Amino acid sequence: MPGHEFFTALTVAEALRGFRPGRRSAVEIVPLDAALHRVPAAPVTTPAPLPGFARATVDGFAVRAADTFGVSEGLPGYLDVIGAVRMGATPTTGVRPGTAVAIPTGGALPPGADAVVMVEYTQEAMPGTIEVVRPAAPGDGLVRADEDVPAGAELVPAGRPLRAQDLGLLAAAGVRELAVHARPAVAIISTGDEVVPATTTALRPGQVRDATAVALAGLVADAGGAPDPRGIVPDDAGLLDEALRAAMKTCDLAVVSAGSSVGARDETAGVVAGLGPPGIFCHGLAIRPGKPTLLAECDGVPVIGLPGNPLSALVVFRLVGVPVLRRIGGCLRPPPEPRTRARLARQVPSAAGRLDVVQVRLDDGVAEPIFGHSALLSVLAAADGYVLVPEAATGLAAGAEVEVVLYQ
Amino acid sequence: MPGHEFFTALTVAEALRGFRPGRRSAVEIVPLDAALHRVPAAPVTTPAPLPGFARATVDGFAVRAADTFGVSEGLPGYLDVIGAVRMGATPTTGVRPGTAVAIPTGGALPPGADAVVMVEYTQEAMPGTIEVVRPAAPGDGLVRADEDVPAGAELVPAGRPLRAQDLGLLAAAGVRELAVHARPAVAIISTGDEVVPATTTALRPGQVRDATAVALAGLVADAGGAPDPRGIVPDDAGLLDEALRAAMKTCDLAVVSAGSSVGARDETAGVVAGLGPPGIFCHGLAIRPGKPTLLAECDGVPVIGLPGNPLSALVVFRLVGVPVLRRIGGCLRPPPEPRTRARLARQVPSAAGRLDVVQVRLDDGVAEPIFGHSALLSVLAAADGYVLVPEAATGLAAGAEVEVVLYQ
Repeated sequence: MPGHEFFTALTVAEALRGFRPGRRSAVEIVPLDAALHRVPAAPVTTPAPLPGFARATVDGFAVRAADTFGVSEGLPGYLDVIGAVRMGATPTTGVRPGTAVAIPTGGALPPGADAVVMVEYTQEAMPGTIEVVRPAAPGDGLVRADEDVPAGAELVPAGRPLRAQDLGLLAAAGVRELAVHARPAVAIISTGDEVVPATTTALRPGQVRDATAVALAGLVADAGGAPDPRGIVPDDAGLLDEALRAAMKTCDLAVVSAGSSVGARDETAGVVAGLGPPGIFCHGLAIRPGKPTLLAECDGVPVIGLPGNPLSALVVFRLVGVPVLRRIGGCLRPPPEPRTRARLARQVPSAAGRLDVVQVRLDDGVAEPIFGHSALLSVLAAADGYVLVPEAATGLAAGAEVEVVLYQ
Repeated sequence: MPGHEFFTALTVAEALRGFRPGRRSAVEIVPLDAALHRVPAAPVTTPAPLPGFARATVDGFAVRAADTFGVSEGLPGYLDVIGAVRMGATPTTGVRPGTAVAIPTGGALPPGADAVVMVEYTQEAMPGTIEVVRPAAPGDGLVRADEDVPAGAELVPAGRPLRAQDLGLLAAAGVRELAVHARPAVAIISTGDEVVPATTTALRPGQVRDATAVALAGLVADAGGAPDPRGIVPDDAGLLDEALRAAMKTCDLAVVSAGSSVGARDETAGVVAGLGPPGIFCHGLAIRPGKPTLLAECDGVPVIGLPGNPLSALVVFRLVGVPVLRRIGGCLRPPPEPRTRARLARQVPSAAGRLDVVQVRLDDGVAEPIFGHSALLSVLAAADGYVLVPEAATGLAAGAEVEVVLYQ
């Protein structure tokens, strides 16, 4: 017979502060075009300054700035145009006093020039000669050879997933490949005598398809991990032990969605406790849904036991599992999550001492809580995001301004 | 010689409102475990109600609620326990008046029962008999057979990229594959005589590596597209025409990062104008950086001409190209972008009539504008996000509260 449950419930914040497995995924070399959102294992410094040569930033004429001092509309300066810079070519004609070289935006500054006069401030006086009607200071109309990236500068830091523009800067500097953390391999084990593969066509009464594994795989992928779904294990301590030990040989993190029954939950804890030191960190979190969560580290592999019902499992994995996963993957600066402020459409009751995760629909700045049993996946699929009711609160009032974390 | 530039500059909002190519990517069938962030081409309705049978949501005893009416701590009811439901099994023992069947959370409700009494409200009176100390109403302690998803209900809508929990709900309902829009194929063509492949080891003065292509590929992938980098084309109208026509045979969207020189830009416009009807929609946007942007649709393929310098190209593609790309991919409800409110550290000047995109670093609620020439990729790589200065404003004051769109 199932009995009462007793948990040593930590708050989510306590759990995240205290549970810090040292595991880090391996470091591997990837080519630049496969590095989007990967996490550099070390800062990448530039092999050379950028752009590497002084470049024009306007269309116009490369000049010696001194030749334009004091010129104006009323008293233009005259310069002989002695050549033109071609894009992509090393300039061959140097600028001497009293001369100018035509140059397009992006062209390399010819020797002798120290400024580029915009074409708008010139006009052809006669073939081969221009009038300059505005003075240029040295450095005007160009970027210096090391203005984009000085020699030895850091292009990207370690620990922050690479964004599109980071790839661009690395490409500009000639970085062709870089060392990143491997995507942490996350074993996903579903348990429960009632759980059948998601591909099962017809269910018998009492059976449910494995909805958690594919959804967890999605959260793992979103957090930079490599999901490794390892199928369904019946409620049998020996089989679970076997499955976990097999997973731990190759994975960086093992996640078990426990059978729903108290017996099955106790079984998971018993099996995890026997996997190796240091063992269970906590069993029970002060969160709803998601209380029967287990955090452990066994022989160097973090193990997370999730509640049996899919909604609770996904809620807890997002709040607790994802930060653990990010850290294993070397991610020190996770990407920002979309959030928005909204007014709560209705009162949300909560018990003090417990973090409540309330799923909401958003409509024009109003957050409508979606009530429904925590076993109902449809609640999560209907939600645009969630609101946290902190441990100290006993609920949130209708009309309260809340922060909604948005699903992507 | 380069001449003055004249553009018919639309605002970004005008361009997005007016430029609405009808192109949609093909529809394809993908298995559920490959459907994360894919865009359903049609709503998916459930093949059957969920969970499909009434399930216990607590550990306890399946009973006839009428048998518990009026019971209390002082006056418990007594029921004979005539069996137990096993997880995953079809219950065989029916509940008759005066009896109860033990049931774990998630177990299928046995015939005859209409409520589940929590184990906490019972105790064993003698072997085979329990005392019930709290009354249960019909429906207590269970979810109905169609409470998660009623027959024929929509599981996921068309046009919204699938999130992890959507995959879970689809799996629960036995949906094994679904029709989604193909990732739009985006041809990325770099142009410019000065541009050399990013893999070039040593540059000659005047040459720059192609930084835009790999960064654009990242933005395309982030927006659900399939980047198809097609290399570098010199500043030659004939070659660009050839490259674009070849790309248009297979792509859903063609993106050209134009050569930086005015001549090259004019060349791009000339080539695009000759590709097919209806042709160029606009050439020039009231945005900085990014003014020399070209939007066109030629023979059913949208074509976007981006500015030559990488920073401007990426800024414009994010603001203008991504919404176009999303629509081509059937995405009607793009995922939310992370944003945050911050105080501007310094004044930002701007010209009225033009949207200014200001890159900022964020530190503890303060947004520090990163000034630097728009040719400098390092500015974009150093940024945490950007602030928009709207067309109507002539700048933003130091200390102003602004919305920062955050890079992910």
